[in-house]
Amino acid sequence: MKLYNYYRSSASFRVRIALELKGLSYDYVPVHLVKNEHQQEGYGAVSASRLVPSLVLDDGESLGQSMAIIEYLDETHPEPRLLPADALARARVRALAQLIACEIHPLNNLRVLRYLTRQLKVDEEAKNTWYRHWVRDGLELLERELARGPGGAYCWGDTPTLADCVLVPQIFNGQRFNVDFSGLPRTMGAFEACMKLAAFQKAQPSACPDAEA
Amino acid sequence: MKLYNYYRSSASFRVRIALELKGLSYDYVPVHLVKNEHQQEGYGAVSASRLVPSLVLDDGESLGQSMAIIEYLDETHPEPRLLPADALARARVRALAQLIACEIHPLNNLRVLRYLTRQLKVDEEAKNTWYRHWVRDGLELLERELARGPGGAYCWGDTPTLADCVLVPQIFNGQRFNVDFSGLPRTMGAFEACMKLAAFQKAQPSACPDAEA
Repeated sequence: MKLYNYYRSSASFRVRIALELKGLSYDYVPVHLVKNEHQQEGYGAVSASRLVPSLVLDDGESLGQSMAIIEYLDETHPEPRLLPADALARARVRALAQLIACEIHPLNNLRVLRYLTRQLKVDEEAKNTWYRHWVRDGLELLERELARGPGGAYCWGDTPTLADCVLVPQIFNGQRFNVDFSGLPRTMGAFEACMKLAAFQKAQPSACPDAEA
Repeated sequence: MKLYNYYRSSASFRVRIALELKGLSYDYVPVHLVKNEHQQEGYGAVSASRLVPSLVLDDGESLGQSMAIIEYLDETHPEPRLLPADALARARVRALAQLIACEIHPLNNLRVLRYLTRQLKVDEEAKNTWYRHWVRDGLELLERELARGPGGAYCWGDTPTLADCVLVPQIFNGQRFNVDFSGLPRTMGAFEACMKLAAFQKAQPSACPDAEA
């Protein structure tokens, strides 16, 4: 398998975590988002929508959208499971992941931040306030949802799930913008539990071949 | 089942479509987003994150996040299927749905538009330009992804899937803001095919009990 991705892309980081948790080896193909490499002709053959990441399977099929990729990996390489076997629990884990992937992350994408500064002429301070607002606001919602869960070290129970694959990159991302993470014990507890695992360490941006200083 | 929702909420509309496609009856419980009814204490007992929609099952369990709800319905009431049986096709349908739900819709939520006008003091014209930009831009990506699919009347083949449940509300939403839908034949073809079906007609905002003039 080949993973077209960028070290600092949260969606890329999610898929790297899932691949590491499942012990699947892959070729790392860097696509430099800030240099707009994803917009170039060549990448269009990999991803019709030219979004990062893309996972290209050994038979040449290419998959996009990080949560869809992770569910595909979970269905085709079931151990260790990243989604619970029970339908209700699975719905709750998906909902936790989507709470981050649909309510928080899209507002802080590179292209959104660029629109704020270039089109809306928002200054650096207001851009950072926007960023922190959506991360903090969203994580407060997540914290309340986690309180309804089964407990355990991670977002859902005692093993990492899809929800943790999505949470950890969001926290990394928030750390870059100095988001206030105080008063979020379940959220930060899950993050810290994840970061004790080799899979999360190996997948993190600073461990990537395209990492910049 | 009870669906806590709002007639004009895209995420609510997605779940109503799925319920109608599967022929499942439910009680419609309106939650007026513009009047901030979702923020009130009572709704906190239904949804920890106080987001709309929530599906409350007959045993009292409450589910959030529209795509997670639809997948739960598909797993517990498999006919007609809203996700293909094959893992690769399922991944592609999920990716189409997520392309809309993660790349387009979150940028045009009520709370985001409010932030633009209240915090960033963006005027009506610039707000509408922002709105149309993300819808148009995202649908162009979707159009390219649909070109890679198996063809058929809908987003994926000849029966409606999760992707259509997410697409149709996005088009309705875009119509309210006069988004330009020209040059998107596959996208708009799928939309028009869906709107010929009774399930989509019954689920649409104007058919809801809380619809306003």
